[in-house]
Amino acid sequence: MKRPTLLLCSTLLLSTLLAPLTSATEHTNQTVVGKLQNSALKSDLAYKIAESLTVEVGPRLAGSAENVVAVDWAEAKLKSLGFDKVYREPVTVPVWQRGTASASVISPFPQQLVISALGGSVATPASGLQAKVVRFDNLAALINADAATVQGKIVFIDQKTERHQNGSGYGKSVGGRVNGAVEAARKGAVAVLIRSIGTDHDRMAHTGLMHYQQDVPRIPAAALTNPDANQLDAILSRGQEVTLSLNMSPKELGNTTTYNVIGEFTGSSKPDEIVLLGAHLDSWDEGTGAIDDAAGVAIVTAAAKMVAELPQRPARTIRVVLFAAEEIGLLGGKAYVAQHASDMANHYIAAESDFGAGRIYRADVRVNPAALAAVWQSLSGLTAMNVELGDNNARGGSEVSLLPGVGVPVASLRQDGNDYFDYHHTPNDTLDKIDPEALAQNVAVYAVFAYQMAQSTLPLRPLPKK
Amino acid sequence: MKRPTLLLCSTLLLSTLLAPLTSATEHTNQTVVGKLQNSALKSDLAYKIAESLTVEVGPRLAGSAENVVAVDWAEAKLKSLGFDKVYREPVTVPVWQRGTASASVISPFPQQLVISALGGSVATPASGLQAKVVRFDNLAALINADAATVQGKIVFIDQKTERHQNGSGYGKSVGGRVNGAVEAARKGAVAVLIRSIGTDHDRMAHTGLMHYQQDVPRIPAAALTNPDANQLDAILSRGQEVTLSLNMSPKELGNTTTYNVIGEFTGSSKPDEIVLLGAHLDSWDEGTGAIDDAAGVAIVTAAAKMVAELPQRPARTIRVVLFAAEEIGLLGGKAYVAQHASDMANHYIAAESDFGAGRIYRADVRVNPAALAAVWQSLSGLTAMNVELGDNNARGGSEVSLLPGVGVPVASLRQDGNDYFDYHHTPNDTLDKIDPEALAQNVAVYAVFAYQMAQSTLPLRPLPKK
Repeated sequence: MKRPTLLLCSTLLLSTLLAPLTSATEHTNQTVVGKLQNSALKSDLAYKIAESLTVEVGPRLAGSAENVVAVDWAEAKLKSLGFDKVYREPVTVPVWQRGTASASVISPFPQQLVISALGGSVATPASGLQAKVVRFDNLAALINADAATVQGKIVFIDQKTERHQNGSGYGKSVGGRVNGAVEAARKGAVAVLIRSIGTDHDRMAHTGLMHYQQDVPRIPAAALTNPDANQLDAILSRGQEVTLSLNMSPKELGNTTTYNVIGEFTGSSKPDEIVLLGAHLDSWDEGTGAIDDAAGVAIVTAAAKMVAELPQRPARTIRVVLFAAEEIGLLGGKAYVAQHASDMANHYIAAESDFGAGRIYRADVRVNPAALAAVWQSLSGLTAMNVELGDNNARGGSEVSLLPGVGVPVASLRQDGNDYFDYHHTPNDTLDKIDPEALAQNVAVYAVFAYQMAQSTLPLRPLPKK
Repeated sequence: MKRPTLLLCSTLLLSTLLAPLTSATEHTNQTVVGKLQNSALKSDLAYKIAESLTVEVGPRLAGSAENVVAVDWAEAKLKSLGFDKVYREPVTVPVWQRGTASASVISPFPQQLVISALGGSVATPASGLQAKVVRFDNLAALINADAATVQGKIVFIDQKTERHQNGSGYGKSVGGRVNGAVEAARKGAVAVLIRSIGTDHDRMAHTGLMHYQQDVPRIPAAALTNPDANQLDAILSRGQEVTLSLNMSPKELGNTTTYNVIGEFTGSSKPDEIVLLGAHLDSWDEGTGAIDDAAGVAIVTAAAKMVAELPQRPARTIRVVLFAAEEIGLLGGKAYVAQHASDMANHYIAAESDFGAGRIYRADVRVNPAALAAVWQSLSGLTAMNVELGDNNARGGSEVSLLPGVGVPVASLRQDGNDYFDYHHTPNDTLDKIDPEALAQNVAVYAVFAYQMAQSTLPLRPLPKK
């Protein structure tokens, strides 16, 4: 792996504060780090945790009965691993049930299409709806379209998702999923179908959250699988008008309470200062949520446990937060920030694992620029695990991305996401998609990161301006 | 590619008849073969045919309304390609409708499992059934089991299918699909679930034909996806009793008539002698039947067309038979053999394409051993397309495997099947699984085979004893 020497050098030049690189403490820390890394790479603890969650709980959509089972599972699991404190904090979530979803071509070539309702979608009328299809290359093309071409039709947003290691293809296409229904309804559409936000060629649709807007009619929204989107394209390419039938029965059933589940290993000398490792306990409802996000739950839980098993407990507290409701709008993270508002100054740094189980190839942070070079020095052991030390623009990922806004330094330990969007939000998100060795590498990286941050004497605040 | 020199040498020694290898006719044929091969490799005709069938017809289970559309499509396609004769021959088939199929774990870890009814299965009671699960490694273990361990339970046959280029893993595991219901019911089981006969890790179950037996109760039969079979294994491994709920609503609706669709390019000098190229028009009902068997339909149709476009029509008639109902028990092939009983002596040789769209890597034949060496000589051009010349034990594939029993020589033009059982009989059998270049290589091989066999002066009968 390449290490960004140039970036590191310029950071060194810019820095006004350099930690003493060869202090005795630092030397001791680096010795511990080597042992921690070795034991983590050999451990199957994370795989066992991921297996336990996916097998004994399975799908666990926030607001569902299964999610309650997951909360109980998480508390029991953290207790069984010997966390010093284990507790839950309430999060209010809407209850949405998927029901059934089917689509078919009525004409010119009658056949079934495979779809999945987008999360939060309303139902069609009970008898379904039938309408002609109008296709757009992407959300922008829909926004720019004449309403007369859309009125009364089913809008088909047909943007392919690009495959990239860092997952950047997702950001380019996901707007159609999130905002497609609003933009289509503004122009009088009766429903919206999107090409799945996914990089696979499997006959499984990718669900995911969509939004409505108060002043715009709520129309049903679903994703076609990539092969079905290809099929609809091919049918449309014949030049005839294409009529689809759509039948979806999701239900909204008010609100309920679920919980962020929190486990802590108390710090030895700075117990009130927190290194936060996050992941999310909820999943979508069609897979067993293995890569999204049993892997993250397993990685951060196992990493904390590995650190706690060291002969010497580090200075700061390591807090694992298993967020309640990431998939349906970072609701667990928002509740955490609200409930811990008075406590945020004690959060030394935070990171979240929510991008599958691929190997970590790069670390970015968002810390006091004056401390950056020394932070990289303290994390230099990561390069032995093929982790490139990156930049100071980390967002922190998922719920943890809410924390820089309230002053908390964050890190993004970036996972190889080349295949993440093959499985993301599909029934295919199952345990077999996790490579145990790659998972263990994640644990080792998180463990080293957590240990060094729990021991660090660097001032990570204030954050750089955006 | 290796050529089996040893086998060829021994065949040469055994042969009593050797064709004149360097005759003027043979020289002309080989020149034609080179041109035919080049034009076939460049042609996208087969891909267009496969695209047309999968898009304009889609799924086409024998006995369904969609299958009637497929028969009309096939007649129209062969006519549009200029076949000299196009006709249909009736085949009686049972009508089976899949209905819905769902399964869930009731205890100890409630969750849905993804299943697909096996073809021909009966329904559960309308309210479903619930029973404990008993697992077996394979069909043999079930057959050897004490009935007391099976009585009243859902049998789970958990054999994995091995991946091999020649597809030989299928034969080892498919017995559980075909005979699992009978063997489980003999011991008092209430239903049977099999691990999908497939090599993938996708959350899609592999359907396929199963059988009942007159003196044994008919119990519902379904396939779990590989990830769901893993999940059930993991749940069972906890050592608790596992209770499943199963609800399936397939229907049997008597018999109907469908059709083998036949197209011929008439031979120039031996019009009554037939080189038969087969494939099957029907598919399972959950995918669009791209690799099974729109690919075969496309390959043999395009190959015949390429030969017919040569400046000189070859001696024998090339007959393309698009069989009506392979998936549900070779019913199209059986009808063909019955209807053409008096005509079988005129079938010079036959081959069928029904193993996807992977490149052909080997040719086997089943011909008069005395002619074998000369047959290989005439087909030696195939080696330029990386096709190994194999043995004299070909079965001919699918329906054509019925023909050696009535004296007809056959060839097996073997396709690379490494990924065939990733998609076979699943919703994932869609057009994107066909590689256009590999498809064109198939066309080129079939075209060369068809041309040389239509021109051959070798006596291919009698067949070797088994």
